[in-house]
Amino acid sequence: MRWAVVLAGGVGSRFWPVSTGERPKQVLPLAGDQPLVRQAVERLAGLVSPERTLLVTGRALGPALRAALPMLPAANVLEEPFAASTAPALAWATAHAAQQDAAASVLSLHADWFVADDAAFRATAAAALELVEREDVIATVGARPTRPETGYGYIVPGGTLGSARRIARFKEKPTRAEAERLCADGALWNTGLFAWTARRFRAEVELHTPELRDALPHLDRGDPVAFFKAVRPVSIDVGVYERTERGAVVVGDFGWDDVGSWAALLRVHRRDEAGNVAVGPAHLVGTSSSVVWSEDGTTVVYGLDNVVVVRARGISLVTRTDLAPDLKKLLDQLPPDLVGERGA
Amino acid sequence: MRWAVVLAGGVGSRFWPVSTGERPKQVLPLAGDQPLVRQAVERLAGLVSPERTLLVTGRALGPALRAALPMLPAANVLEEPFAASTAPALAWATAHAAQQDAAASVLSLHADWFVADDAAFRATAAAALELVEREDVIATVGARPTRPETGYGYIVPGGTLGSARRIARFKEKPTRAEAERLCADGALWNTGLFAWTARRFRAEVELHTPELRDALPHLDRGDPVAFFKAVRPVSIDVGVYERTERGAVVVGDFGWDDVGSWAALLRVHRRDEAGNVAVGPAHLVGTSSSVVWSEDGTTVVYGLDNVVVVRARGISLVTRTDLAPDLKKLLDQLPPDLVGERGA
Repeated sequence: MRWAVVLAGGVGSRFWPVSTGERPKQVLPLAGDQPLVRQAVERLAGLVSPERTLLVTGRALGPALRAALPMLPAANVLEEPFAASTAPALAWATAHAAQQDAAASVLSLHADWFVADDAAFRATAAAALELVEREDVIATVGARPTRPETGYGYIVPGGTLGSARRIARFKEKPTRAEAERLCADGALWNTGLFAWTARRFRAEVELHTPELRDALPHLDRGDPVAFFKAVRPVSIDVGVYERTERGAVVVGDFGWDDVGSWAALLRVHRRDEAGNVAVGPAHLVGTSSSVVWSEDGTTVVYGLDNVVVVRARGISLVTRTDLAPDLKKLLDQLPPDLVGERGA
Repeated sequence: MRWAVVLAGGVGSRFWPVSTGERPKQVLPLAGDQPLVRQAVERLAGLVSPERTLLVTGRALGPALRAALPMLPAANVLEEPFAASTAPALAWATAHAAQQDAAASVLSLHADWFVADDAAFRATAAAALELVEREDVIATVGARPTRPETGYGYIVPGGTLGSARRIARFKEKPTRAEAERLCADGALWNTGLFAWTARRFRAEVELHTPELRDALPHLDRGDPVAFFKAVRPVSIDVGVYERTERGAVVVGDFGWDDVGSWAALLRVHRRDEAGNVAVGPAHLVGTSSSVVWSEDGTTVVYGLDNVVVVRARGISLVTRTDLAPDLKKLLDQLPPDLVGERGA
């Protein structure tokens, strides 16, 4: 049977001051009327049922995420005892599925994506699941770049594997010049949409991931606390995909965006005639290419371009769109009591 | 005896969203810890006592101004029944003084100025009063320009009159090129600090100000409502000073600023190392030459220059310092219920 694992850790501090532990990025309606995480689960309709959709998050965020996902069995929200990057989280959730369904194949995705074309997303995800079931590989989905983004990881495809490709190499967060070269050479954005069979995933971790290998028996015994205590944090990309010889990439075009910062709202929302995105009561006069998110009052912007203005929780943030992805540099310079709980 | 008349009409809509009818510009601590109007009255200490200091304002603003001026007898706050520009207001207040003191000489000033050097202000005001008492002229005080300001009126001085000068002509709100020429030619800013004897003022109005002349008997009968109904609105500059043959100008250097917009706070407040002025809880990071006024929460500005950010009454305003003097153009484009009561 097909399962889905939705990674939903992290507060989303690039969405400060709106995002908090009680209201992390994933439950914000950043790309429409619904929380991102609810869009992520509903997008799987017809591919994976909510009963087989698992969500992995931190303990602090569990209540907010369960509240945002009334269609999901409460037991499907797995709360990590400690944050340990993505490989342990996915090993836990994959083991959780395998214990109920030894033939499980797993689709792994993130809670906080924007997807423009849900049907194309489902078709691509289905193709990735079919590939891993047929070829005994572990798959990632690559999106064709629409800009030389320096904040993403890239996949350089290798030889063909049916309609998919082998993975030649990964390149994480390139410089601008490298990104332009990668785009010109046909590299793909590494979306983080992965697929594997539980059986092959276990085998690959045992082969390539010493950070997790010796801890796996704790999962077999149903003791995730002991597992998380025993692992060393490592990402799924570094811990598995960059080491495996069975990696494959499926190309997908479904208007993917990781909604990584306030500036991303310019890509995932409808803009006004001047290219602005405004959420909440706002008046933008003589203003262009700007983002306004106004929660606890009214925001008026007059005569500025390329700015981000956020009003929430008694705090106003005013910055430039080009600095929004680096918001953590700002938070590092603010008093901790103003910033509150930090997250990924 | 010497009297003072403080003009305190107008809400100060260039200080939206902070200024309102209940809290007009004059009662805001825009240039220090005290309301501007209180600084204006206290600045007269030793020159004119509070008992002989009159304040003219609109009916809506009377309560806020009395509350800000506990040292002033309540009866000294004169509430205009209708707004009719400055000449009727000053005629009323001058008549009010003359009825108690036929030999009154009157100093007229505005409630919302910044003055860097209070002692120099008093010395200049005293010189203007002495001049009008000695020479039977009506006087204005001209400040030596420190920049080619286009928002002010200018006075071109004429022949000498003791240590003062006659007035050759006025030039209201010049273009930038005209302002530069006026500064180069030794013209002075028209501060609006005036002095006259009540007797000479009455004579000049009767000679030159048909907008007021026939209404003066209403003041003699103590009926300001009939007076304001009968006058035609006209400013003291146009209605008296530009028409009189007895005008004189006293030069003063006391660091005068009319605190005309949010951007003026950059001149009248101490700046931080990056040239910013912040009032209220604010954090400015990578930001320069900007003004932040934060009343109902915390404001964070990151990576911007020359901006104005104001947070008050559930409204955030974000604009550029160079647009702050034109804030009324913005207010014209906002919903009336957001703007509230408008004023001068």
